[in-house]
Amino acid sequence: MTAPVIDCLQYANWSEEIFRQMRAGGVHAVHVTITYHENFRETVHNIERWNCWFERYPHLIFLGRTGDDVRLAQKTNRTAVFFGAQNPSVIEDDIRLVEICHMLGLRFMQLSYNNQSLLAAGCYENNDPGITRMGRQVIREMNRVGLVVDMSHSGDRSTLEAIEISERPIAITHANPSWWHPALRNKSHQVLKALTDSGGMLGFSLYPHHLKHGSKCTAESFCEMVLETAERYGVDRIGIGSDLCQDQPDSIVTWMRNGRWSKELDLGEGSTTVPGFPDQPPWFKDNRDFDNIADGLRAKSMSEHDVALIMGGNWLRFYDESFSPRAAL
Amino acid sequence: MTAPVIDCLQYANWSEEIFRQMRAGGVHAVHVTITYHENFRETVHNIERWNCWFERYPHLIFLGRTGDDVRLAQKTNRTAVFFGAQNPSVIEDDIRLVEICHMLGLRFMQLSYNNQSLLAAGCYENNDPGITRMGRQVIREMNRVGLVVDMSHSGDRSTLEAIEISERPIAITHANPSWWHPALRNKSHQVLKALTDSGGMLGFSLYPHHLKHGSKCTAESFCEMVLETAERYGVDRIGIGSDLCQDQPDSIVTWMRNGRWSKELDLGEGSTTVPGFPDQPPWFKDNRDFDNIADGLRAKSMSEHDVALIMGGNWLRFYDESFSPRAAL
Repeated sequence: MTAPVIDCLQYANWSEEIFRQMRAGGVHAVHVTITYHENFRETVHNIERWNCWFERYPHLIFLGRTGDDVRLAQKTNRTAVFFGAQNPSVIEDDIRLVEICHMLGLRFMQLSYNNQSLLAAGCYENNDPGITRMGRQVIREMNRVGLVVDMSHSGDRSTLEAIEISERPIAITHANPSWWHPALRNKSHQVLKALTDSGGMLGFSLYPHHLKHGSKCTAESFCEMVLETAERYGVDRIGIGSDLCQDQPDSIVTWMRNGRWSKELDLGEGSTTVPGFPDQPPWFKDNRDFDNIADGLRAKSMSEHDVALIMGGNWLRFYDESFSPRAAL
Repeated sequence: MTAPVIDCLQYANWSEEIFRQMRAGGVHAVHVTITYHENFRETVHNIERWNCWFERYPHLIFLGRTGDDVRLAQKTNRTAVFFGAQNPSVIEDDIRLVEICHMLGLRFMQLSYNNQSLLAAGCYENNDPGITRMGRQVIREMNRVGLVVDMSHSGDRSTLEAIEISERPIAITHANPSWWHPALRNKSHQVLKALTDSGGMLGFSLYPHHLKHGSKCTAESFCEMVLETAERYGVDRIGIGSDLCQDQPDSIVTWMRNGRWSKELDLGEGSTTVPGFPDQPPWFKDNRDFDNIADGLRAKSMSEHDVALIMGGNWLRFYDESFSPRAAL
């Protein structure tokens, strides 16, 4: 079987149209965000919405739980949907909710989202105290049940400590190297080195604020960055995590940035000139555009073997290794 | 592989001692009640308690989800624990919680517990209006996801309608025929005939209030009842559902009977002379006593083949047929 196409982060305004675009684009698996600031009970409501879509569009999508579900998606011409949380609000202050969430299909959880959480600092905090007392235990519990630690929105110190503490490889599902584009959300060489040296994965983001020249970033520039990352850290440790937020109204990015924690309007990566979602670059607007990335890599003389790893082969290996409870390993 | 021993209803005050008794008694699977009047969020806490036990005693017990998990229990000398709800409080007024509960491992749900619920009448109500509007849809949803309809504590009309409406066989996990002992909770010939004609299963109860002569019931009398039930309805439609409530304080039976619905003390099957849990008959006090039943059936000249069906073979077939989502059938 040829390698699958896997996108390891999207948060779209889901619809039949988008699910059909996944099929049209030959996307076999997507890690979707199901919750930001929602508590456990609210997240269950979000899972119910996904269950509605799974029931309604069984010929297009189904809930993915293991790497083998990606292979099933390839075999049955569907897209396996893997659940993730961008913030640990979903586990509230209850470490036992880690396993409950895994039972409900959760496969990735960020330890923080921009702000300090009960577990780790976010990348927007001025002070990063590292992984908290609860954070250390939650990482151990996530390792036990097979829930991947994702540090995409966390601070540097917290991220380095999470890599050190976690006994299974972690992920930064959606970010780019800051040596290519020095955005606050992009990651330092030190972080990327520690991440990849420990077997962890980086998913390249296509979110304009993470791209050199933003919405005007060229596919060529993006692919050059991918190649250099492969050279620096190894072609086995990288994949796509597009951060595609298709068809979302700007009220959603306001929720993502402000949740219920802020009385002031926090613009996050935005600005008064671009307060909402920025425009996607024209060569990556939706799930039908993954070929533009693969073709861009080929144009840079990357081998078919390596293109396949980056477009999904690496994530599939990581999924195979990461989602099972420890006792079953 | 020989047939397993399966008990299709217990609600004990769980402990390592009881889990060890399950092993000592050669019990391969138990359907355990995890919730009565608890709402969804409270039931999640109860599942967390079970997850603690699964983590602590992995050499004794694990969560069962399919019939194959019974076989795994046989192979690995452990007991597979299957979750059930004795009341639909857990799904609140939200039909989508049926699937969420199935994702969390729930495999049986009673449509009512003694009282009228949102779905069906309980056996203590004077008036049984049959399956409600919501009840009809919930049965269909339970059929879809693989959650078994259990009518042990429901009224006759509701039970007959549930058998009629359900497109997959249902169960009465813990009750006896009222022609043997006319307790309110035992079941009429009409109900048992409809249940078994439709492929449904009856689990024989060892709870003293359901036994002829209560705590003084003899194993011989119990086994005579089993034989007559096999003759009347077929040896393929019966198993054990002991309703064992080992080591529980009487405050628990008060909760089971009164929940939060009553300001008066409802004694249910009890009485002012026996307000708490009645004593178990001496030949069935805990999980080490299943052989007393099997031996009693052999003493009545039942074949080894039929004894094996009743002690667990029939439930295993029923588990194989009942717990998978419909699409996967």
